Amino acid sequence: MGAFRRGHALYGESIAFLNGGDVAPDARTAVPIVRAKGERTVNETTNVPESESRLPGYTFGTPQVPRSPITGDEWEELKKSALFSEEDVVYLRLSETVLKDQVDALLTTWRGIIFDHPHLRAYDEHPRTHEVDADYAKAVAKRFGQWVLDTARAKYDQAWLDYQYEIGLRHHRSKKNQTDGGHTLGHIRARDLVAFCASIVVPMKSFLGSKGHSAEVVNRMYDAWWKSMLLQATLWLQPYIREGDF
Amino acid sequence: MGAFRRGHALYGESIAFLNGGDVAPDARTAVPIVRAKGERTVNETTNVPESESRLPGYTFGTPQVPRSPITGDEWEELKKSALFSEEDVVYLRLSETVLKDQVDALLTTWRGIIFDHPHLRAYDEHPRTHEVDADYAKAVAKRFGQWVLDTARAKYDQAWLDYQYEIGLRHHRSKKNQTDGGHTLGHIRARDLVAFCASIVVPMKSFLGSKGHSAEVVNRMYDAWWKSMLLQATLWLQPYIREGDF
Repeated sequence: MGAFRRGHALYGESIAFLNGGDVAPDARTAVPIVRAKGERTVNETTNVPESESRLPGYTFGTPQVPRSPITGDEWEELKKSALFSEEDVVYLRLSETVLKDQVDALLTTWRGIIFDHPHLRAYDEHPRTHEVDADYAKAVAKRFGQWVLDTARAKYDQAWLDYQYEIGLRHHRSKKNQTDGGHTLGHIRARDLVAFCASIVVPMKSFLGSKGHSAEVVNRMYDAWWKSMLLQATLWLQPYIREGDF
Repeated sequence: MGAFRRGHALYGESIAFLNGGDVAPDARTAVPIVRAKGERTVNETTNVPESESRLPGYTFGTPQVPRSPITGDEWEELKKSALFSEEDVVYLRLSETVLKDQVDALLTTWRGIIFDHPHLRAYDEHPRTHEVDADYAKAVAKRFGQWVLDTARAKYDQAWLDYQYEIGLRHHRSKKNQTDGGHTLGHIRARDLVAFCASIVVPMKSFLGSKGHSAEVVNRMYDAWWKSMLLQATLWLQPYIREGDF
């Protein structure tokens, strides 16, 4: 982590990129909503707090999301391929308490990795001018922050499964740029979609360890994140896979 | 790990499956070769000891392996997407010293996971009779053991890159069963190919920690394995991905 931060201090240009032109959100606090004291407004379909469903382009649990090509039963089976168990759910949920006030820092880290690598940065840039589409990057970053919370909450219903498919479509040429009216490279390669999972999970370790949990508990949260990341990447890959091969 | 071992003790049937009808190999010791004292016979193209290249179907470094669709430069770039660095190479190579006499136990663990899950076991079974193809399972297990050593050696040349493509083809309907004249289900689904990576890497942790290295060193070996696993799964996916999407 330190290496990234030091590296970025060298580039004035990077600061705006890292901030995405905005403060990266913990969506639950970023969007103030009016409600009665103590009352939590919740979307009944998904249990997602209403404030979060207002993030631009965050269509989790809405009719705009297409149906997942795989069924709930297939998802149950898939979890077994990754040894993903109820214990992992427990540690993911514990990780929410650890990560929820560190989402901004995580996003800065991940955006730093992207910024450092032209072939990754290209996904936020106009393919000819190589100018970063700041509005696109900002909107995506907000949903990326929301994704951290959704992953940690580990609530696997049909709405969650459908939204994983939607996330895949938004990385694939099928829907890249559509949600945000972006002007960036029109397709994230399957290779980067999968390999970047390591860039997401490995740097999380120090964040997971920052709240005083024992090494054993940190390791279990970390493994749960790895498994969940891999399972989600698998679901995101669906639009990339040849007919019948998934 | 304990849970797997206890679970398997319940099933007499599983023992033969776990053994694959044979002792799983550390290939370097399993095939005795005649040579002058102190001399190590090596395939000059790949630096793979000649004894290993004699494993049935292990065509690493031979002209039978098709050329990888991606170039060495693209591989260099891909490593960056996963934050894979020279430090990871160091820890992978250290892991060879830790794992080389534990390959049999690793294979038993992985085969145990496969055996426990009908949808994974199906890949070693005849699709109609559901009988395990023992010859196929045995041949695959030997190369799986060899793969542990190859991964730990982390020697990334063209022969290695080409062989990753070949491994992908052998999981995909393109070449499943071909190498060993197998009679098993003719295609490993992309979803299981990716998700099973967690079943490979997570159980390795205790093996990596069994030789007295500090927790920090074990964690670094573990992360290097995760990254390498993810990068290899990415390369294996090539035959599964739609034209132009990889």
